[in-house]
Amino acid sequence: MEISYNQNKAELGKMLFFDPRLSKSGWLSCNSCHNLAMGGDDNRPSSIGHQWQIGPINSPTVLNARFNVAQFWDGRAKDLQEQAGGPIANPKEMASNHQLAIKILQSIPDYQTKFEKVYGDKDISINEVTDAIAEFEKTLITPASRFDQWLLGDDSQLTLQEKEGYHLFKEKGCVACHNGVGVGGNSYQKFGVVKPYDKDKNSLGRYNVTKKEEDKYVFKVPLLRNIELTAPYFHDGSVWSLNEAVSLMADYQLGIKLTDNETNKIVAFLKTLTGKQPEITYPVLPPENIHTPRPSIN
Amino acid sequence: MEISYNQNKAELGKMLFFDPRLSKSGWLSCNSCHNLAMGGDDNRPSSIGHQWQIGPINSPTVLNARFNVAQFWDGRAKDLQEQAGGPIANPKEMASNHQLAIKILQSIPDYQTKFEKVYGDKDISINEVTDAIAEFEKTLITPASRFDQWLLGDDSQLTLQEKEGYHLFKEKGCVACHNGVGVGGNSYQKFGVVKPYDKDKNSLGRYNVTKKEEDKYVFKVPLLRNIELTAPYFHDGSVWSLNEAVSLMADYQLGIKLTDNETNKIVAFLKTLTGKQPEITYPVLPPENIHTPRPSIN
Repeated sequence: MEISYNQNKAELGKMLFFDPRLSKSGWLSCNSCHNLAMGGDDNRPSSIGHQWQIGPINSPTVLNARFNVAQFWDGRAKDLQEQAGGPIANPKEMASNHQLAIKILQSIPDYQTKFEKVYGDKDISINEVTDAIAEFEKTLITPASRFDQWLLGDDSQLTLQEKEGYHLFKEKGCVACHNGVGVGGNSYQKFGVVKPYDKDKNSLGRYNVTKKEEDKYVFKVPLLRNIELTAPYFHDGSVWSLNEAVSLMADYQLGIKLTDNETNKIVAFLKTLTGKQPEITYPVLPPENIHTPRPSIN
Repeated sequence: MEISYNQNKAELGKMLFFDPRLSKSGWLSCNSCHNLAMGGDDNRPSSIGHQWQIGPINSPTVLNARFNVAQFWDGRAKDLQEQAGGPIANPKEMASNHQLAIKILQSIPDYQTKFEKVYGDKDISINEVTDAIAEFEKTLITPASRFDQWLLGDDSQLTLQEKEGYHLFKEKGCVACHNGVGVGGNSYQKFGVVKPYDKDKNSLGRYNVTKKEEDKYVFKVPLLRNIELTAPYFHDGSVWSLNEAVSLMADYQLGIKLTDNETNKIVAFLKTLTGKQPEITYPVLPPENIHTPRPSIN
């Protein structure tokens, strides 16, 4: 998992990622829903937005999100940059708009200087803002999980139970969707392959994008890296227990009933996917001034 | 500003300071209102609490708060530890209660281990929680401001305008209240010494604690260190411009009218009080599990 990125750009992106002034209220930042202290999500069924509006879907982790084939559960953003612009302007989330966000940043001389350093111009654009945020997010990988170290040949990293769990993970068919660098994130699949998922009928998934009937309830397969850090599970955040999540997946997606022993082993394996969390130096943000548009609670 | 503190305890306190699970919703942490990226406050007139309730008073900075004679604008908490317990259980703020907060922490094995390491016991108490948070907060000082360096003999740190501002700050009488290590924070004073402050009649200040008529509208004098980072100003957060704040203070507290030139000089001096911000490595919090009480939006 070697990665390369532009350090000045990522440093600017980190500031923006943590800056609540990108929200109308001055209260919510990217990190509110994608909290880097908590596995890159907010550990809630769905997020809380402007005026305490409750989001319709579980916030996916930003950790390793670069390995997703597209962003959002329905894949409506083609990459991290396109994703980053969404929540800022979503009236149920940060409830700002791109013009206001730019006006705020543009009013702060330190931001002007930093954008000029990275993009060669003091005039800040929304494309630069989302580009910088995406660049920071690209740094958010979690290498050196026990499973990775085991794959590289260090047999002591996994217990017998965990190895058996890995074996079951492949044998039972989980690996059909959860594979690749992110252990997921590279395909869309229907939630409810062998029996309909009926807990949530409101989230139409990929259908939102394609408007094809067969894409109803089709979602991007979530990444399984760091899965122990990101309860509750599924697009509706309805399940808090990883054992229950594994058991339900087997039932709905594979049409099999796992024994408790099998579930325990698979869960033990999944917990070996927790990697080294990014070490983040919390940014110091430049102060606003009398020219900065003021936050609004309404 | 040499300080000593218990490193393990402060490290645990940092985790708690950033942990939104201390709130009922799992959404708000100490850092929500006392954001260490933004001068230790939230840069809003007043904070947003559980269910988007709007707080009655401006959140003071946590930076250098150890130098306050007591905590909160009305001084109702004698120290940082006593303060830390307040917002957790305030129904308008984090809206949890101490029993629930403890139950959540106690359910997380990593927290148990860390509390045992610091306090010798896996049984977590609210006193330990607030003690650890206070220990972390004691580390949040901002040394080496240009003014400090100038005081230590480096004359090049201040411009002529800034020095003149410092002279005016003393000569006009600001220093009568804003003095000591924190440049404030060590006394209570009436807001409206020479003429009544009528923008906010709801905040009774020190009267809340003493119930003495003469303590109405008496507030703890705020610290002026890093003041350029913590707009808006006053207990009601009604003023965004530091120039306007200085001018109003002179008017209400000293009964004098500063010229624009004098105000500019004093503001220039105040900006030399911005110190080195604490370098915070963002914590990685241990995950909850099926035994952890779940967050609630209601």
